[in-house]
Amino acid sequence: MKILVVGSVAYDAVETPAGKRESQLGGSASYFSTSASYFTEVGLIGVVGQDFAPYDKEMFESHGIDTSGLIEADGKTFRWAGEYMEDINEAVTLETQLNVFGDFEPELSEAHANAPYLFLANIDPTLQMNVLNSMNQRPKMIALDTMNLWIDIARSQLLDVIGKVDTLLINEGEAKQLTEQEHLPDAAAAIISQGPDATVIKRGEYGAALFGQGFSFAAPAYPLERVIDPTGAGDSFAGGFMGYLASVDKVNEETLRTAAIAGSTMASFAVEDFGLDRIKNLTQEDIKGRFKAFEDLTRFNSLA
Amino acid sequence: MKILVVGSVAYDAVETPAGKRESQLGGSASYFSTSASYFTEVGLIGVVGQDFAPYDKEMFESHGIDTSGLIEADGKTFRWAGEYMEDINEAVTLETQLNVFGDFEPELSEAHANAPYLFLANIDPTLQMNVLNSMNQRPKMIALDTMNLWIDIARSQLLDVIGKVDTLLINEGEAKQLTEQEHLPDAAAAIISQGPDATVIKRGEYGAALFGQGFSFAAPAYPLERVIDPTGAGDSFAGGFMGYLASVDKVNEETLRTAAIAGSTMASFAVEDFGLDRIKNLTQEDIKGRFKAFEDLTRFNSLA
Repeated sequence: MKILVVGSVAYDAVETPAGKRESQLGGSASYFSTSASYFTEVGLIGVVGQDFAPYDKEMFESHGIDTSGLIEADGKTFRWAGEYMEDINEAVTLETQLNVFGDFEPELSEAHANAPYLFLANIDPTLQMNVLNSMNQRPKMIALDTMNLWIDIARSQLLDVIGKVDTLLINEGEAKQLTEQEHLPDAAAAIISQGPDATVIKRGEYGAALFGQGFSFAAPAYPLERVIDPTGAGDSFAGGFMGYLASVDKVNEETLRTAAIAGSTMASFAVEDFGLDRIKNLTQEDIKGRFKAFEDLTRFNSLA
Repeated sequence: MKILVVGSVAYDAVETPAGKRESQLGGSASYFSTSASYFTEVGLIGVVGQDFAPYDKEMFESHGIDTSGLIEADGKTFRWAGEYMEDINEAVTLETQLNVFGDFEPELSEAHANAPYLFLANIDPTLQMNVLNSMNQRPKMIALDTMNLWIDIARSQLLDVIGKVDTLLINEGEAKQLTEQEHLPDAAAAIISQGPDATVIKRGEYGAALFGQGFSFAAPAYPLERVIDPTGAGDSFAGGFMGYLASVDKVNEETLRTAAIAGSTMASFAVEDFGLDRIKNLTQEDIKGRFKAFEDLTRFNSLA
């Protein structure tokens, strides 16, 4: 197992201008692991309820994802309901039923605890820290995602765990909220001063900005004619980003840049259909083709 | 004269979070011509009043700008007052005094009418059309900028003149307003269906998107730590964009891509100080250095 991801597995009810789904497989760990599975071997730690459909678990397994850490607990799977009717870039949460996810306590097997790459998806920072401390040795690279909820209610625990990771992935608004900085480069510098070597600031339809030690990199968004469902775009990005890094097994400025485009590639697929419908059905040719489209989107000649 | 620009020359009162200026040289033709002057020979058609300072005209001339078309009329120079206190990306107009600009009727000399590149800066589309019709022959390339005011009050005249130009430069919100399209690629396609071969959609702090026949290109914004004054960023972009195209005297997909980065380079300088203070004092080394920084900002390796 090259990458271990710890996060949520959920059933989502989603409404977008393109339509409505009552109960689709979702959750950060689902998007991340499916996306990363095109690049490397992934193990997933999460919890589901008695209502979790066998074919959803089979979908993970058909992607080579190690589901030995996907616990089936008494109760119902985590449910989230949201809509993007006013603004396709911003989910409005209609309902959250934590269900079995409310008592989630990640437990790592020996194989999990030896994973060289670790993605701490958006969960309670205290759980993120517990997972980090449960690893047998410090992974080669740890990345972390978070959200405004944890900035609001668990700021100090969040800062503690951010101080221990290599890359923070975060939305633009949340980066500014976390650092209390108005300007993106200042927010990135403040994050890097907390410990991480790099931060990926996600800007929705405007792409992502990567800031590292002494460099910055702009990853555009792919100019899609239609965004069907933006749910999971950030976790799909993270899956491509870490999946690429784990596949080359080297983390430096050069690989981080390419990883940001691998992430953008996977995010661009994720939003093309509801839930995981697009990213669960990709070929390596699809991914190479879209990556090349990003090369074309950003290519220009030097000044004469 | 390689490029002719027709537009406004103004004195602006501007307030931004970085400070306040009571009366600084501004106007679309001022920003455009100063920016383009680093790339090629520019002639400016505009009108000023009796209050126009000799040193402002000398500034243009020190940049090799042909000011034979800058008419001094009876009355006062166009004055605009605006602020960016709430949102650095959006000017709030506090006052507009058209003054001599209210009666502006561009008149072209023989040299003006033979210019091979023409930039119709943001003025009444009827005047833009008059200038276009006054050219001795169709220029090799015509670009046009506009704003929401003309979409609101002169839509049909605006569509007529857009139908005759090669490149439309327009803000994202105005592109959507003009085309009544919600998605950027759809808005770009609608613009191109009106006549232009290409459109540059300006996205403020998110950079610019270039759409051409069968290709698109994403130009990032330079991650500046501070935007001092965004006034004139769009016209400075246009100056770098057209200045580069005129300097290589070739308009195709390859040169348009590079031109978009030349434009982004000049826009990134423009916002670093109030008014023209930064872009009037550049060296070729400054420009080459910033262009290289854009190369670095967008560079990544292929997938293995």
